[in-house]
Amino acid sequence: MKILRTIYAEDLEDIAIGGAILGTGGGGDPYVGKLMAQEAIRKHGPVKLIDVEDLADDALVVPVCMMGAPTVMTEKLPQGDELVTAFRKLEQLLGRKIDAVLCGEAGGVNSTTPFVVAAATGLPLVDGDGMGRAYPELQMVTFTMHGVSATPMVLCDDKGNSLVLETVSNGWTERLARAATVEMGGSALLAFYPMSGDIAKKAVVRGTLSLCANLGRTLRETRAAHADPVTAITKMLGASIIFNGRVRDIDRRTVGGFARGSARFDGLETWKGHSFKLDFQNEFLMAERDGEMICSTPDLITLLEAESGNPVTADSLRYGLRLVALAFPCNPQWLTPAGIALVGPRYFGYNADYTPYPFS
Amino acid sequence: MKILRTIYAEDLEDIAIGGAILGTGGGGDPYVGKLMAQEAIRKHGPVKLIDVEDLADDALVVPVCMMGAPTVMTEKLPQGDELVTAFRKLEQLLGRKIDAVLCGEAGGVNSTTPFVVAAATGLPLVDGDGMGRAYPELQMVTFTMHGVSATPMVLCDDKGNSLVLETVSNGWTERLARAATVEMGGSALLAFYPMSGDIAKKAVVRGTLSLCANLGRTLRETRAAHADPVTAITKMLGASIIFNGRVRDIDRRTVGGFARGSARFDGLETWKGHSFKLDFQNEFLMAERDGEMICSTPDLITLLEAESGNPVTADSLRYGLRLVALAFPCNPQWLTPAGIALVGPRYFGYNADYTPYPFS
Repeated sequence: MKILRTIYAEDLEDIAIGGAILGTGGGGDPYVGKLMAQEAIRKHGPVKLIDVEDLADDALVVPVCMMGAPTVMTEKLPQGDELVTAFRKLEQLLGRKIDAVLCGEAGGVNSTTPFVVAAATGLPLVDGDGMGRAYPELQMVTFTMHGVSATPMVLCDDKGNSLVLETVSNGWTERLARAATVEMGGSALLAFYPMSGDIAKKAVVRGTLSLCANLGRTLRETRAAHADPVTAITKMLGASIIFNGRVRDIDRRTVGGFARGSARFDGLETWKGHSFKLDFQNEFLMAERDGEMICSTPDLITLLEAESGNPVTADSLRYGLRLVALAFPCNPQWLTPAGIALVGPRYFGYNADYTPYPFS
Repeated sequence: MKILRTIYAEDLEDIAIGGAILGTGGGGDPYVGKLMAQEAIRKHGPVKLIDVEDLADDALVVPVCMMGAPTVMTEKLPQGDELVTAFRKLEQLLGRKIDAVLCGEAGGVNSTTPFVVAAATGLPLVDGDGMGRAYPELQMVTFTMHGVSATPMVLCDDKGNSLVLETVSNGWTERLARAATVEMGGSALLAFYPMSGDIAKKAVVRGTLSLCANLGRTLRETRAAHADPVTAITKMLGASIIFNGRVRDIDRRTVGGFARGSARFDGLETWKGHSFKLDFQNEFLMAERDGEMICSTPDLITLLEAESGNPVTADSLRYGLRLVALAFPCNPQWLTPAGIALVGPRYFGYNADYTPYPFS
């Protein structure tokens, strides 16, 4: 099989940081993700990244993920072993060798979890994911729109408990897996959405892991060259800067297994005198400027530290942080009635239609 | 295999009523249990009841149960089909034919659920159960004390969702299955605690289903003969009448998948001027008379209607009902340090040691 690129332990730094940029405030702490994947690669060897196009049509591909509120993930440092256990249990259940590993979502943690499994099993990893970003619920993947069932799914915890789910819909998988995850202490490790190569070619958001690596590298190199990292990232993503300011208030709770809340900002520079608010359910869902909704899912909203350009997750927001908010367009797969129904603002309880941010 | 007795649809009336007496206020509505089992027997034929002693040592025996708050079970009339699905899925998972069905708990519903599976599969049903009564949590079975794991366990709902659990302890099985049951709408159907014949011979509380049938028959016949059904049941169980009165207050909530609360009674006749209180978590846990704890789990506390002798469940208690409260001794298997730790008053949050009611 043609190998796009071989990924070594040191590459994970860039990938995790890039994942956190696409993670739109959720998706977990990139430091945690990086450590877990680096340890696996150091132990088992590097990971072969492949293009989805190079999969055989009848290949069996399986995404892996960590599930849970990012606040909990960070407190409860995950063990990569249970990811491999979940993956192997699903393989046994399917009665067939899995041919490649897939990334479920881009985020500080879940851009790195598939590297753990790919390193431990020696299987290639597809360069892509099921979102092109992070979302809070497990049915929110392009796979759902292509008719792939989330189950049979295996869910493991760090204590040695495991569940096999078979459900009537991916929405039910989310409900039952979320309830189990909460009971397991707030985070769990999954192997799910088993699919064939031909479906993967249609469903996967392509190139996400390369994009993560490039975003991380750009941030690092721009900083080393004493250039402006925020400008470089904005340009690379085709993003718009929608606000620049300081954190004023944060309201954050862990409810029903999610980190929910909102953050308010006071404007600086161009935005002096203006106000800005971000709502989140793990990920940033909606941005309001001067009381008006200006951007929402499925478009991406990300916060970068004004000076360093480092992505900031919703759970690391704190009073006084100086941040720049970016908005950038989602993968076109989400721009269908089915996509908007799955992840648009109405799903999250907003009484508003999705309006694409007017990206120039 | 020697058949103790063949059970026909009409026998289920007595068994369900007797189950509700041993159900100690929980275990579900006997009317629901009766209908479900009668339908299965009418469709598939009668059930062969066998003695646990007649199982081969290497036989594979599997208990089945409905899980959930009784209040929900009654609103959501269960389908027997999902019980059979859970049983067959577990059989497939174990890769071996199951030889006999077992009753998990005695109660209005769960004394009858194993008849559904025995009728549908044609397998014999062991005359016994895992409690000799009903308890609210699924680790509270004699099987746990004999080292039997609750998992692999299959849990199904009425929508077509299913879960396979493998856990590190039976306490974890309870936590994860309870969370799933709540999410599934409050009730679910299980096949669990797969065990061998030799373990079943040590662990099973023997004769429970025959006792249910005899209690139900006694109640029916005494009533037909215009004799006092309460006296007949009291005598048959070796029980003591611990109160006689009317329901004054009921505090009942569905919390965490359980029907929790307490009921207060005003005394009549011998108990005029005295007060009585029963706490419950699905089942009656503790009886207090004139402010003093007089009886608790694992001993059984049951309420009978003063006139008809019919058992009254915690969820059918209502203001003004005239009731007699009985206490009777639990199966001796519970009277060990392990048994008391599993189901004694301290487990349920009471700061008191278990003291057997002074049965004469």
